[in-house]
Amino acid sequence: MPHIALGSDDPGITGLFRFRPETAGPLNALAEVLLRGESTLTRGERELIAAYVSSLNSCRFCFSSHAAFAAAQLPEGMAMVDQVRADLDTAPISVKMKALLDIAAAVQQGGLAVSDQHVAAARAAGATDVELHDTVLIAAAFCMYNRYVDGLATITPDDPAVYAVVAERIVTHGYTATLAQPEVESR
Amino acid sequence: MPHIALGSDDPGITGLFRFRPETAGPLNALAEVLLRGESTLTRGERELIAAYVSSLNSCRFCFSSHAAFAAAQLPEGMAMVDQVRADLDTAPISVKMKALLDIAAAVQQGGLAVSDQHVAAARAAGATDVELHDTVLIAAAFCMYNRYVDGLATITPDDPAVYAVVAERIVTHGYTATLAQPEVESR
Repeated sequence: MPHIALGSDDPGITGLFRFRPETAGPLNALAEVLLRGESTLTRGERELIAAYVSSLNSCRFCFSSHAAFAAAQLPEGMAMVDQVRADLDTAPISVKMKALLDIAAAVQQGGLAVSDQHVAAARAAGATDVELHDTVLIAAAFCMYNRYVDGLATITPDDPAVYAVVAERIVTHGYTATLAQPEVESR
Repeated sequence: MPHIALGSDDPGITGLFRFRPETAGPLNALAEVLLRGESTLTRGERELIAAYVSSLNSCRFCFSSHAAFAAAQLPEGMAMVDQVRADLDTAPISVKMKALLDIAAAVQQGGLAVSDQHVAAARAAGATDVELHDTVLIAAAFCMYNRYVDGLATITPDDPAVYAVVAERIVTHGYTATLAQPEVESR
């Protein structure tokens, strides 16, 4: 049961967005630009970073959500998410994505855990400054979203179908459209 | 030295805002609504939560910044920030603020660390649902800002006067005005 009376049964962050639209706006805008905006990292790769950090933070709602969003946008689908989560070292990803996920894992520990060596390894594998920036900010942002969702003990559905439905909506219409959805439904 | 070439000597998060204006917008809008928007918590109290979490995350730039912003807006000034940072249990704050800062410290550890007991204590001291929500989100947001600033190894000025100048600007004009400032200066 959520720690506060949200006034709806909307799960995870969607219940929080409905409760406090003032903060939902910037939180959604940030997810949209980071995970779907112009970038040399694919949307699938960025969702994979989000899912990986959410897994490290043991946030079941965010992991299930972004695992589904990653799977829907990666050529290898959910198999890739599962392999990265199980063992990053043996997962069949590029050297660059491995180095970026290593940086994301360091950020999850704390900003000061990101070392010159982490950055040098990513650079040697071809990562650009913007890719490094965005990886750090995606990882940092999910250290926020994960704490927000679990710190208020929001509802986490068990049924994978729930996340698959949201994935289809986000892949097609984006995060900002999702924000407007509850209002449309409640008319 | 920052991990990436930011293209300016702007310290801390301001260097990152200039480097990536696409993400600066939502990040600033979030700070503005959380720390300065309509609330039953004073702006000083909210900045105190931000400074406290930044201290727990050992983020020197964010702590120095938000300590200055809190001091400028709390009747007790920097003495209160110093006392809360040194020992929350003996700091001369209200029972409600103590309970909210306890929740913020739990969020800093991880979302799942916020217990029913934390929430019950804050409620018993008069905290509302919106105050609980905002405390969790402020603490979670600073777990992002702190990791963003330190994960990219941005510049941290030592001179307290630097933070005092920014504090005056933020107290008077807000976070969004600060975002526009560098562009004005560079004309």
